[in-house]
Amino acid sequence: MNAKTALLLIDWQQGLRTESRPGEDRSTPQAAENGARLASHWRANGWPLITVQHNSTEENSDLRPGMPGHALEPFAEPQGNEPHITKTVNSAFLGTDLQLHLMQHGIRDLVVSGLTTDHCVSTTVRMAENLGFNVTLVSDACAAYGKTLPDGTVMSGDTIHRANLASLQDEFAIIVTTDEIVG
Amino acid sequence: MNAKTALLLIDWQQGLRTESRPGEDRSTPQAAENGARLASHWRANGWPLITVQHNSTEENSDLRPGMPGHALEPFAEPQGNEPHITKTVNSAFLGTDLQLHLMQHGIRDLVVSGLTTDHCVSTTVRMAENLGFNVTLVSDACAAYGKTLPDGTVMSGDTIHRANLASLQDEFAIIVTTDEIVG
Repeated sequence: MNAKTALLLIDWQQGLRTESRPGEDRSTPQAAENGARLASHWRANGWPLITVQHNSTEENSDLRPGMPGHALEPFAEPQGNEPHITKTVNSAFLGTDLQLHLMQHGIRDLVVSGLTTDHCVSTTVRMAENLGFNVTLVSDACAAYGKTLPDGTVMSGDTIHRANLASLQDEFAIIVTTDEIVG
Repeated sequence: MNAKTALLLIDWQQGLRTESRPGEDRSTPQAAENGARLASHWRANGWPLITVQHNSTEENSDLRPGMPGHALEPFAEPQGNEPHITKTVNSAFLGTDLQLHLMQHGIRDLVVSGLTTDHCVSTTVRMAENLGFNVTLVSDACAAYGKTLPDGTVMSGDTIHRANLASLQDEFAIIVTTDEIVG
Protein backbone atom coordinates (compact mmCIF):
# COMPACT_ATOMS: atom_id res chain seq x y z
CA MET A 1 0.00 0.00 0.00
CA ASN A 2 1.28 3.43 -0.90
CA ALA A 3 0.27 6.92 -2.01
CA LYS A 4 -0.98 5.49 -5.33
CA THR A 5 -3.25 2.88 -3.70
CA ALA A 6 -6.82 4.08 -3.38
CA LEU A 7 -9.16 2.88 -0.64
CA LEU A 8 -12.64 2.48 -2.12
CA LEU A 9 -15.40 2.61 0.51
CA ILE A 10 -18.53 1.24 -1.16
CA ASP A 11 -22.08 1.95 0.06
CA TRP A 12 -21.31 2.35 3.77
CA GLN A 13 -24.88 3.54 4.28
CA GLN A 14 -27.04 3.34 7.37
CA GLY A 15 -29.86 1.50 5.57
CA LEU A 16 -27.51 -1.48 5.25
CA ARG A 17 -26.85 -1.71 9.00
CA THR A 18 -27.93 -4.93 10.72
CA GLU A 19 -30.39 -2.98 12.84
CA SER A 20 -31.95 -1.46 9.72
CA ARG A 21 -32.84 -4.94 8.46
CA PRO A 22 -34.58 -6.72 11.35
CA GLY A 23 -35.01 -10.43 10.85
CA GLU A 24 -32.24 -10.64 8.28
CA ASP A 25 -29.05 -12.56 8.87
CA ARG A 26 -25.82 -10.65 8.17
CA SER A 27 -22.22 -11.81 8.14
CA THR A 28 -19.14 -10.10 9.60
CA PRO A 29 -20.34 -8.12 12.65
CA GLN A 30 -17.00 -6.21 12.78
CA ALA A 31 -17.19 -5.04 9.17
CA ALA A 32 -17.97 -1.36 9.90
CA GLU A 33 -15.35 -1.17 12.65
CA ASN A 34 -12.80 -2.58 10.21
CA GLY A 35 -13.91 -0.21 7.48
CA ALA A 36 -13.34 2.66 9.91
CA ARG A 37 -9.86 1.32 10.78
CA LEU A 38 -8.94 1.22 7.10
CA ALA A 39 -10.27 4.76 6.55
CA SER A 40 -8.26 6.08 9.53
CA HIS A 41 -5.13 4.36 8.23
CA TRP A 42 -5.52 5.88 4.76
CA ARG A 43 -6.27 9.35 6.10
CA ALA A 44 -3.36 9.23 8.57
CA ASN A 45 -1.04 8.38 5.67
CA GLY A 46 -2.57 10.92 3.31
CA TRP A 47 -3.33 8.19 0.75
CA PRO A 48 -6.23 8.50 -1.73
CA LEU A 49 -9.61 7.57 -0.31
CA ILE A 50 -12.76 7.51 -2.43
CA THR A 51 -16.25 7.19 -1.00
CA VAL A 52 -19.06 5.64 -3.04
CA GLN A 53 -22.73 6.17 -2.20
CA HIS A 54 -25.73 4.43 -3.71
CA ASN A 55 -28.57 6.68 -4.86
CA SER A 56 -31.33 4.16 -5.32
CA THR A 57 -33.94 4.96 -7.94
CA GLU A 58 -36.37 2.43 -6.44
CA GLU A 59 -39.47 3.93 -4.84
CA ASN A 60 -39.32 1.92 -1.62
CA SER A 61 -35.57 1.60 -1.12
CA ASP A 62 -33.95 2.72 2.12
CA LEU A 63 -31.05 3.89 -0.04
CA ARG A 64 -33.09 6.43 -1.98
CA PRO A 65 -31.80 10.02 -1.50
CA GLY A 66 -33.83 11.68 1.25
CA MET A 67 -34.39 8.48 3.21
CA PRO A 68 -32.60 8.12 6.58
CA GLY A 69 -30.95 4.91 5.34
CA HIS A 70 -29.30 6.79 2.50
CA ALA A 71 -26.92 8.51 4.95
CA LEU A 72 -23.31 7.39 5.00
CA GLU A 73 -21.65 5.98 8.11
CA PRO A 74 -19.56 8.77 9.70
CA PHE A 75 -16.22 7.19 8.69
CA ALA A 76 -17.42 6.97 5.09
CA GLU A 77 -18.39 10.64 4.80
CA PRO A 78 -15.97 12.38 2.45
CA GLN A 79 -13.50 14.61 4.30
CA GLY A 80 -11.74 17.63 2.81
CA ASN A 81 -11.44 17.19 -0.94
CA GLU A 82 -11.84 13.41 -1.00
CA PRO A 83 -13.67 12.43 -4.17
CA HIS A 84 -17.24 11.24 -3.68
CA ILE A 85 -18.88 9.02 -6.29
CA THR A 86 -22.64 8.53 -6.48
CA LYS A 87 -24.13 5.70 -8.47
CA THR A 88 -27.55 4.26 -9.29
CA VAL A 89 -26.53 0.69 -10.19
CA ASN A 90 -24.32 -1.87 -8.47
CA SER A 91 -21.13 -1.12 -10.35
CA ALA A 92 -19.38 2.06 -9.23
CA PHE A 93 -17.89 2.26 -12.74
CA LEU A 94 -21.14 2.59 -14.69
CA GLY A 95 -22.54 6.08 -15.16
CA THR A 96 -19.77 7.61 -13.01
CA ASP A 97 -16.36 9.16 -13.58
CA LEU A 98 -14.58 6.72 -11.27
CA GLN A 99 -12.46 5.13 -14.00
CA LEU A 100 -11.51 8.55 -15.39
CA HIS A 101 -10.59 9.82 -11.94
CA LEU A 102 -8.36 6.82 -11.22
CA MET A 103 -6.63 7.06 -14.60
CA GLN A 104 -6.09 10.81 -14.27
CA HIS A 105 -4.44 10.25 -10.89
CA GLY A 106 -2.29 7.35 -12.05
CA ILE A 107 -4.01 4.93 -9.67
CA ARG A 108 -3.92 1.25 -10.69
CA ASP A 109 -4.23 -0.35 -7.26
CA LEU A 110 -7.47 -0.48 -5.26
CA VAL A 111 -8.27 -1.69 -1.75
CA VAL A 112 -11.99 -2.33 -1.28
CA SER A 113 -14.27 -2.33 1.78
CA GLY A 114 -18.04 -2.04 1.68
CA LEU A 115 -21.54 -3.39 1.52
CA THR A 116 -22.73 -5.77 0.42
CA THR A 117 -20.12 -8.37 -0.45
CA ASP A 118 -22.25 -10.12 -3.04
CA HIS A 119 -24.04 -7.17 -4.64
CA CYS A 120 -22.27 -3.82 -5.07
CA VAL A 121 -18.86 -4.92 -3.77
CA SER A 122 -18.62 -8.00 -6.00
CA THR A 123 -19.97 -6.17 -9.05
CA THR A 124 -17.54 -3.28 -8.62
CA VAL A 125 -14.55 -5.54 -7.89
CA ARG A 126 -15.26 -7.64 -10.98
CA MET A 127 -15.52 -4.62 -13.25
CA ALA A 128 -12.43 -3.01 -11.70
CA GLU A 129 -10.35 -6.09 -12.44
CA ASN A 130 -11.78 -6.45 -15.94
CA LEU A 131 -10.87 -2.79 -16.60
CA GLY A 132 -7.26 -3.53 -15.62
CA PHE A 133 -7.04 -2.44 -11.98
CA ASN A 134 -5.33 -4.55 -9.31
CA VAL A 135 -7.85 -5.19 -6.57
CA THR A 136 -7.31 -6.15 -2.93
CA LEU A 137 -10.56 -7.01 -1.15
CA VAL A 138 -10.65 -6.83 2.65
CA SER A 139 -12.76 -9.80 3.69
CA ASP A 140 -13.61 -8.71 7.25
CA ALA A 141 -14.40 -5.16 6.15
CA CYS A 142 -17.32 -6.29 3.96
CA ALA A 143 -20.59 -8.04 4.79
CA ALA A 144 -23.41 -9.92 3.07
CA TYR A 145 -26.99 -10.74 3.96
CA GLY A 146 -28.44 -14.25 3.85
CA LYS A 147 -30.50 -15.34 0.87
CA THR A 148 -33.21 -17.86 0.00
CA LEU A 149 -33.01 -19.82 -3.26
CA PRO A 150 -35.99 -20.54 -5.56
CA ASP A 151 -36.11 -24.12 -4.19
CA GLY A 152 -36.45 -22.78 -0.63
CA THR A 153 -32.88 -23.43 0.47
CA VAL A 154 -31.78 -20.81 3.01
CA MET A 155 -28.15 -19.70 2.91
CA SER A 156 -26.78 -17.70 5.86
CA GLY A 157 -25.10 -14.33 5.48
CA ASP A 158 -21.84 -16.00 6.41
CA THR A 159 -22.15 -18.66 3.69
CA ILE A 160 -23.09 -16.08 1.07
CA HIS A 161 -20.20 -13.85 2.17
CA ARG A 162 -17.62 -16.64 2.12
CA ALA A 163 -18.78 -18.23 -1.14
CA ASN A 164 -18.66 -14.85 -2.85
CA LEU A 165 -15.13 -14.23 -1.53
CA ALA A 166 -14.12 -17.66 -2.80
CA SER A 167 -15.47 -16.81 -6.26
CA LEU A 168 -13.66 -13.46 -6.36
CA GLN A 169 -10.35 -14.80 -5.02
CA ASP A 170 -7.50 -14.95 -7.54
CA GLU A 171 -9.78 -14.43 -10.54
CA PHE A 172 -10.66 -10.85 -9.56
CA ALA A 173 -8.94 -9.89 -6.31
CA ILE A 174 -6.45 -10.75 -3.63
CA ILE A 175 -8.38 -11.43 -0.40
CA VAL A 176 -6.84 -10.11 2.83
CA THR A 177 -7.93 -9.18 6.35
CA THR A 178 -7.90 -5.73 7.94
CA ASP A 179 -5.08 -6.78 10.27
CA GLU A 180 -2.94 -7.75 7.30
CA ILE A 181 -3.24 -4.19 6.01
CA VAL A 182 -3.24 -1.90 9.03
CA GLY A 183 -1.13 -4.18 11.23
CA MET B 1 -39.56 -15.69 -24.61
CA ASN B 2 -40.03 -14.37 -28.11
CA ALA B 3 -38.20 -13.24 -31.26
CA LYS B 4 -36.70 -10.32 -29.30
CA THR B 5 -35.27 -12.50 -26.51
CA ALA B 6 -31.63 -13.40 -27.11
CA LEU B 7 -30.06 -16.59 -25.81
CA LEU B 8 -26.51 -15.83 -24.68
CA LEU B 9 -24.27 -18.91 -24.60
CA ILE B 10 -21.21 -17.95 -22.55
CA ASP B 11 -17.86 -19.76 -22.77
CA TRP B 12 -19.18 -23.21 -23.64
CA GLN B 13 -15.58 -24.31 -24.26
CA GLN B 14 -14.06 -27.75 -24.00
CA GLY B 15 -11.37 -26.65 -21.53
CA LEU B 16 -14.14 -26.09 -18.98
CA ARG B 17 -15.47 -29.69 -19.24
CA THR B 18 -15.33 -31.76 -16.09
CA GLU B 19 -12.94 -34.19 -17.78
CA SER B 20 -10.61 -31.32 -18.70
CA ARG B 21 -10.18 -30.49 -15.00
CA PRO B 22 -9.33 -33.75 -13.26
CA GLY B 23 -9.50 -33.59 -9.50
CA GLU B 24 -11.78 -30.55 -9.50
CA ASP B 25 -15.34 -30.67 -8.23
CA ARG B 26 -17.97 -29.26 -10.58
CA SER B 27 -21.68 -28.63 -10.06
CA THR B 28 -24.58 -29.36 -12.41
CA PRO B 29 -23.58 -32.44 -14.44
CA GLN B 30 -26.47 -31.83 -16.89
CA ALA B 31 -25.46 -28.23 -17.66
CA ALA B 32 -24.14 -28.86 -21.19
CA GLU B 33 -27.12 -31.05 -22.10
CA ASN B 34 -29.43 -28.27 -20.90
CA GLY B 35 -27.43 -25.63 -22.76
CA ALA B 36 -27.87 -27.73 -25.93
CA ARG B 37 -31.64 -28.02 -25.29
CA LEU B 38 -31.91 -24.25 -24.99
CA ALA B 39 -29.87 -23.74 -28.17
CA SER B 40 -32.08 -26.18 -30.12
CA HIS B 41 -35.21 -24.43 -28.83
CA TRP B 42 -33.95 -21.01 -29.90
CA ARG B 43 -32.81 -22.23 -33.32
CA ALA B 44 -36.08 -24.11 -33.94
CA ASN B 45 -37.97 -20.89 -33.21
CA GLY B 46 -35.63 -18.69 -35.21
CA TRP B 47 -34.95 -16.52 -32.15
CA PRO B 48 -31.67 -14.60 -31.72
CA LEU B 49 -28.81 -16.69 -30.36
CA ILE B 50 -25.42 -15.20 -29.54
CA THR B 51 -22.33 -17.27 -28.78
CA VAL B 52 -19.57 -15.90 -26.59
CA GLN B 53 -16.05 -17.38 -26.56
CA HIS B 54 -13.22 -16.57 -24.19
CA ASN B 55 -9.85 -15.84 -25.81
CA SER B 56 -7.56 -16.07 -22.82
CA THR B 57 -4.44 -13.95 -22.88
CA GLU B 58 -2.81 -16.05 -20.15
CA GLU B 59 0.18 -18.10 -21.26
CA ASN B 60 -0.89 -21.35 -19.62
CA SER B 61 -4.66 -21.16 -20.00
CA ASP B 62 -6.59 -23.96 -21.69
CA LEU B 63 -8.81 -21.22 -23.11
CA ARG B 64 -6.03 -19.52 -25.06
CA PRO B 65 -6.68 -19.52 -28.85
CA GLY B 66 -4.88 -22.46 -30.41
CA MET B 67 -5.27 -24.72 -27.38
CA PRO B 68 -7.66 -27.71 -27.67
CA GLY B 69 -9.63 -26.40 -24.67
CA HIS B 70 -10.40 -23.17 -26.51
CA ALA B 71 -12.79 -25.02 -28.85
CA LEU B 72 -16.52 -24.48 -28.37
CA GLU B 73 -18.90 -27.30 -27.58
CA PRO B 74 -20.68 -28.27 -30.83
CA PHE B 75 -24.03 -26.76 -29.75
CA ALA B 76 -22.30 -23.47 -28.96
CA GLU B 77 -20.62 -23.14 -32.37
CA PRO B 78 -22.24 -20.25 -34.25
CA GLN B 79 -24.53 -21.45 -37.05
CA GLY B 80 -25.40 -19.48 -40.19
CA ASN B 81 -25.16 -15.78 -39.42
CA GLU B 82 -25.47 -16.05 -35.64
CA PRO B 83 -23.31 -13.34 -34.05
CA HIS B 84 -20.16 -14.56 -32.33
CA ILE B 85 -18.54 -12.47 -29.60
CA THR B 86 -14.96 -13.01 -28.48
CA LYS B 87 -13.70 -11.54 -25.23
CA THR B 88 -10.53 -11.47 -23.16
CA VAL B 89 -12.02 -10.63 -19.75
CA ASN B 90 -14.93 -12.08 -17.78
CA SER B 91 -17.56 -9.58 -18.87
CA ALA B 92 -18.85 -10.14 -22.39
CA PHE B 93 -19.65 -6.41 -22.50
CA LEU B 94 -16.10 -5.08 -22.07
CA GLY B 95 -14.01 -4.66 -25.21
CA THR B 96 -16.79 -6.13 -27.40
CA ASP B 97 -19.70 -4.83 -29.46
CA LEU B 98 -22.28 -6.93 -27.59
CA GLN B 99 -24.15 -3.95 -26.12
CA LEU B 100 -24.19 -2.18 -29.50
CA HIS B 101 -25.43 -5.33 -31.25
CA LEU B 102 -28.26 -5.81 -28.77
CA MET B 103 -29.33 -2.17 -28.97
CA GLN B 104 -29.20 -2.13 -32.77
CA HIS B 105 -31.48 -5.18 -32.84
CA GLY B 106 -33.92 -3.84 -30.24
CA ILE B 107 -33.09 -6.65 -27.81
CA ARG B 108 -33.70 -5.88 -24.12
CA ASP B 109 -34.29 -9.42 -22.83
CA LEU B 110 -31.52 -11.98 -22.36
CA VAL B 111 -31.57 -15.64 -21.36
CA VAL B 112 -28.18 -16.85 -20.16
CA SER B 113 -26.50 -20.26 -20.07
CA GLY B 114 -22.79 -20.85 -19.70
CA LEU B 115 -19.61 -21.43 -17.76
CA THR B 116 -18.72 -20.74 -15.14
CA THR B 117 -21.58 -19.58 -12.94
CA ASP B 118 -19.40 -17.55 -10.60
CA HIS B 119 -16.85 -16.13 -13.01
CA CYS B 120 -17.85 -15.15 -16.56
CA VAL B 121 -21.58 -15.85 -16.19
CA SER B 122 -22.00 -13.83 -12.99
CA THR B 123 -19.83 -10.98 -14.25
CA THR B 124 -21.72 -10.75 -17.55
CA VAL B 125 -25.16 -11.05 -15.92
CA ARG B 126 -24.33 -8.28 -13.42
CA MET B 127 -23.14 -5.91 -16.12
CA ALA B 128 -26.08 -6.74 -18.39
CA GLU B 129 -28.54 -5.84 -15.65
CA ASN B 130 -26.63 -2.70 -14.72
CA LEU B 131 -26.72 -1.64 -18.39
CA GLY B 132 -30.51 -1.99 -18.38
CA PHE B 133 -31.14 -5.44 -19.85
CA ASN B 134 -33.66 -7.87 -18.33
CA VAL B 135 -31.81 -11.08 -17.54
CA THR B 136 -33.12 -14.61 -17.05
CA LEU B 137 -30.45 -17.01 -15.82
CA VAL B 138 -30.98 -20.74 -16.37
CA SER B 139 -29.67 -22.36 -13.20
CA ASP B 140 -29.27 -25.93 -14.49
CA ALA B 141 -27.64 -24.76 -17.72
CA CYS B 142 -24.66 -23.24 -15.88
CA ALA B 143 -21.96 -24.78 -13.69
CA ALA B 144 -19.29 -23.74 -11.21
CA TYR B 145 -16.12 -25.34 -9.88
CA GLY B 146 -15.36 -25.76 -6.19
CA LYS B 147 -13.06 -23.29 -4.46
CA THR B 148 -10.76 -23.10 -1.44
CA LEU B 149 -10.76 -20.02 0.79
CA PRO B 150 -7.62 -18.38 2.22
CA ASP B 151 -8.39 -19.99 5.60
CA GLY B 152 -8.42 -23.45 3.98
CA THR B 153 -12.20 -23.90 3.91
CA VAL B 154 -13.22 -25.99 0.91
CA MET B 155 -16.51 -25.14 -0.79
CA SER B 156 -17.96 -27.63 -3.28
CA GLY B 157 -18.88 -26.71 -6.82
CA ASP B 158 -22.51 -27.15 -5.84
CA THR B 159 -22.25 -24.71 -2.91
CA ILE B 160 -20.41 -22.14 -5.02
CA HIS B 161 -22.96 -22.53 -7.80
CA ARG B 162 -25.97 -22.18 -5.51
CA ALA B 163 -24.60 -19.31 -3.44
CA ASN B 164 -23.79 -17.38 -6.59
CA LEU B 165 -27.29 -17.98 -7.94
CA ALA B 166 -28.71 -16.76 -4.62
CA SER B 167 -26.66 -13.57 -4.88
CA LEU B 168 -27.77 -12.91 -8.47
CA GLN B 169 -31.44 -13.71 -7.84
CA ASP B 170 -33.80 -10.71 -7.94
CA GLU B 171 -30.98 -8.16 -7.78
CA PHE B 172 -29.62 -9.04 -11.22
CA ALA B 173 -31.67 -11.84 -12.76
CA ILE B 174 -34.71 -14.07 -12.62
CA ILE B 175 -33.52 -17.62 -11.95
CA VAL B 176 -35.30 -20.44 -13.82
CA THR B 177 -34.68 -24.03 -14.89
CA THR B 178 -34.34 -25.33 -18.43
CA ASP B 179 -37.66 -27.17 -18.13
CA GLU B 180 -39.40 -23.93 -17.25
CA ILE B 181 -38.24 -22.48 -20.56
CA VAL B 182 -38.32 -25.30 -23.10
CA GLY B 183 -41.18 -27.22 -21.44
